[in-house]
Amino acid sequence: MKKLMCVPNVSEGTDRSKIDQFAASITEDPGIRLIDLSSDKDHNRSVFSYLGDPDAVLAATKRLADSVFSLIDMRAHKGSHPRQGALDVVPFIPVGSMTTDEALPIAREFGRFIGEKGIPVYYYEDAATAPERVSLVDVRKGEYEVLEEKLKDPSWYPDEGPAVFVPSVGSVQVAVRFPLVAFNVNLRTDSLELAADIAKAVRQRDGGYRYVRAIGLSLADSGMVQVSMNLTNYVKTPVHRVLETIRSEASARGVTVASTELVGPVPVGALEQVARHYLQAHGFSAGQIIETSA
Amino acid sequence: MKKLMCVPNVSEGTDRSKIDQFAASITEDPGIRLIDLSSDKDHNRSVFSYLGDPDAVLAATKRLADSVFSLIDMRAHKGSHPRQGALDVVPFIPVGSMTTDEALPIAREFGRFIGEKGIPVYYYEDAATAPERVSLVDVRKGEYEVLEEKLKDPSWYPDEGPAVFVPSVGSVQVAVRFPLVAFNVNLRTDSLELAADIAKAVRQRDGGYRYVRAIGLSLADSGMVQVSMNLTNYVKTPVHRVLETIRSEASARGVTVASTELVGPVPVGALEQVARHYLQAHGFSAGQIIETSA
Repeated sequence: MKKLMCVPNVSEGTDRSKIDQFAASITEDPGIRLIDLSSDKDHNRSVFSYLGDPDAVLAATKRLADSVFSLIDMRAHKGSHPRQGALDVVPFIPVGSMTTDEALPIAREFGRFIGEKGIPVYYYEDAATAPERVSLVDVRKGEYEVLEEKLKDPSWYPDEGPAVFVPSVGSVQVAVRFPLVAFNVNLRTDSLELAADIAKAVRQRDGGYRYVRAIGLSLADSGMVQVSMNLTNYVKTPVHRVLETIRSEASARGVTVASTELVGPVPVGALEQVARHYLQAHGFSAGQIIETSA
Repeated sequence: MKKLMCVPNVSEGTDRSKIDQFAASITEDPGIRLIDLSSDKDHNRSVFSYLGDPDAVLAATKRLADSVFSLIDMRAHKGSHPRQGALDVVPFIPVGSMTTDEALPIAREFGRFIGEKGIPVYYYEDAATAPERVSLVDVRKGEYEVLEEKLKDPSWYPDEGPAVFVPSVGSVQVAVRFPLVAFNVNLRTDSLELAADIAKAVRQRDGGYRYVRAIGLSLADSGMVQVSMNLTNYVKTPVHRVLETIRSEASARGVTVASTELVGPVPVGALEQVARHYLQAHGFSAGQIIETSA
């Protein structure tokens, strides 16, 4: 079963009517399954997660792009999350038996579709055209506010479309990537310093696990703190290993894990590992899983 | 998505050619997914697990019955596992959004199909017609060898078909039931007594968990012992709770859990619980799970 997931991040997190129109443009095709829609007012950003046959997902993402370009004006956009355009990131994620190589032509066709509208496109992660464009952090450095200057730099000539700044839209960042796991660990303390220390202990940047990006956050409502993470390759850096490292680091500081959160879609392979590890069920395979009503 | 699973147990575990013919009768319809096929020579018994649209599963099971009745002669059958017929048990298991009430008419139609061939049928578990017929252990008491006498007893008049003993076939036991989890815990000791003690600690019969059936077994090859279990309602008696009880009981006797086995199909809801418990991800839902290639 070859399926494609797409998780576009759109620079609008407050206007419910616009967000609803974006969602409607995606789900116009009943073959598309909208798994998750999260809007954040502080970030002023919405994240759509949907799944379907590859061609249907491509068509839905084109409809979304048209809707976003007609309803968002980046000149008026403010938000705490980094962004470089109205349709800020469009990652395509192979699912089921689909491979990265099979997802790439879809991403390229989407990029050309945007480029032909006269809008600049950057490919990143597994779709990147150069090593310095692999990391989204690098591609988006300086954000929307410096994009006009960036487009004049030959080393930042766009991968699709002209090197022309379109103020209402900015640029579109398109990727193919491995499914990531968004995993947060809540700690029974109000020490943000402790959360930041533990985030450093597990993240690649500071010597931690290779496929972990992590930050420490305060959870105002509960009076606790959180290690908020993206696990970018749950096969090589599995959920349970990161959790147990955090548990051990917290415990050494006299703090317990209050709860965790798996946010949005979770690849079935990540759960297979959880069962193998904690149940010691070494032979368990995701192929054994059946859907049930209970 | 309304799907039906069927897990017939057939009294033939040695003759590969016959077992292959049984499997072929099931998978003749490409819409049927054969999830698992396990044959045991000591038991002289094969277990088929397959899944599909309810009508397709009914048709596949009728084809299997015809194949079994034409190839198995119970007069020649010997095996260590209890059995009362060639097509010994036929449990139908609702899957996805299908309910027990929706599965019942399918089980009844299958039972009538067998009865019309002049073969006696007993319904058990959620298909039972009387309280004393709910438990398969009760229905199958005395096994094939006493069936001729049992059929003369008015209290064991069959639910479908005549009260006539058909020596080549015996009787067919048909059920609707909740999906069960077959879960084995391997202990790092060769003491069968210890495994039997711990089986008693967790099983309902001896004061343990309500939805656990358990026995202690020796694993000759590894020199270990096993607590071999069926969890008949993993929602009310979850896998992790049973494992942790066994771990605690074994630990108090100086023995560790070497590994566990989840055998055959595993309902996704059982894994949801594993993730919630061991990851402390209290808000995690099976609806978040996506299939992936990795």
